Amino acid sequence: MRYLINFSYDGSNFFGYQKQVDKRTVQGELEKVLFKLANKKISVSASGRTDALVHALNQYAHFDLDINITSEKLKKALNSILPSDIYIKKVEEVTCDFHARFNVKAKEYIYKINVDEYNPIERNYIYQYNKELDIEKMRKAIIFFEGVHNFKSFTKSNSEIDDYEREIYETRIDVIDNIVTIYFKGNGFLRYMVRNMVGCLIEVGQGKRDIKDILNILELKDRTKAGMIAPACGLYLMNVYY
Amino acid sequence: MRYLINFSYDGSNFFGYQKQVDKRTVQGELEKVLFKLANKKISVSASGRTDALVHALNQYAHFDLDINITSEKLKKALNSILPSDIYIKKVEEVTCDFHARFNVKAKEYIYKINVDEYNPIERNYIYQYNKELDIEKMRKAIIFFEGVHNFKSFTKSNSEIDDYEREIYETRIDVIDNIVTIYFKGNGFLRYMVRNMVGCLIEVGQGKRDIKDILNILELKDRTKAGMIAPACGLYLMNVYY
Repeated sequence: MRYLINFSYDGSNFFGYQKQVDKRTVQGELEKVLFKLANKKISVSASGRTDALVHALNQYAHFDLDINITSEKLKKALNSILPSDIYIKKVEEVTCDFHARFNVKAKEYIYKINVDEYNPIERNYIYQYNKELDIEKMRKAIIFFEGVHNFKSFTKSNSEIDDYEREIYETRIDVIDNIVTIYFKGNGFLRYMVRNMVGCLIEVGQGKRDIKDILNILELKDRTKAGMIAPACGLYLMNVYY
Repeated sequence: MRYLINFSYDGSNFFGYQKQVDKRTVQGELEKVLFKLANKKISVSASGRTDALVHALNQYAHFDLDINITSEKLKKALNSILPSDIYIKKVEEVTCDFHARFNVKAKEYIYKINVDEYNPIERNYIYQYNKELDIEKMRKAIIFFEGVHNFKSFTKSNSEIDDYEREIYETRIDVIDNIVTIYFKGNGFLRYMVRNMVGCLIEVGQGKRDIKDILNILELKDRTKAGMIAPACGLYLMNVYY
């Protein structure tokens, strides 16, 4: 039976989603728990990885498990043995041709920035920028990311992938109580892409860059032109659509 | 010169505010940093202690320091060597008869409860109750705490203090996005008093207790009558008034 799980995690104490030898990862913890339940190795396939310190409000993954258990009981069993920084929100049975990564239609990410003074309570959950940003300029700039673009300037500089083209469907910048939340929805995101776009937007908000620089940088297809990468702790995988 | 500091901390990784041998405490960290600056032991006196895992948004403390430094530079110096879970928001010079504990006029505490599903990201910052509560009943019940009362039923059972009388000036329960925030302002709070009042209110919200039980429990002056103590992680010292 193939199961799709919807889960959240606090990325603070993980070396990212993807399994690594001798490092605490989300996939590693999930597979450890499934091993206990199934008494054999069960591979977990997520919608995509998240980097170290990045959080997820709604991540999805599938796995195959041939023990006789209802979805609701499987959810309870998993949560009862998972560490407190991962939580399974929903378990559902899916057909065996469903794939948590290949079937993704869209993803949403949010990035949070504190523009007020340093707050120790949210130091692992919001980028402590602690200075003013010109939000109106950032709102004008972010629109240039919308649509179909080659995002080579906004991904890992030495990444070797075939296709740098992605479509961003929707963007938004909200400000509530000195917390700036930057929202992106798209058909897919390259490695570091959200954090690099946010870094560039912060430079616009600081006045270091012009609004239209976004378009030029996209055109240049060169990572060295896009400036700073925003810290991982402000990033949340918000949702995945199938 | 006597200095008053206004500071915030994330209580998650502290054994409370007050110094203890071989344990990481907020006072211990502050005194360690002041020792580095002054090259001698400097005692820090706070408005009061907070227990292990309890957070502070605005705590206050005073200390005497005879090095020649402006308040603004002292703030920067302290923050540059303090660990990331403590932050000095303000430093000001006060007269030498000022005392951070004895001069307190009022204190505010808030307590946060998540009534939606478990959220790993806020597991150290909001009590994960994860079930419904009857907020209207709790709003009626909390009013009974207002005014002058003997709070012996709501403090540590074996506490030996002379005076259990405190005045609560104001209470409020707000609900935003499935987070219930319970607010108390008073002239002072006994040990565990807020968490015990919140525990009792939760039992009212669960339907386990009647609204008027609050008055009866206050009358009984007996800790065993007041029920559960709410977990420390939901509690925040919000403000101190002088």
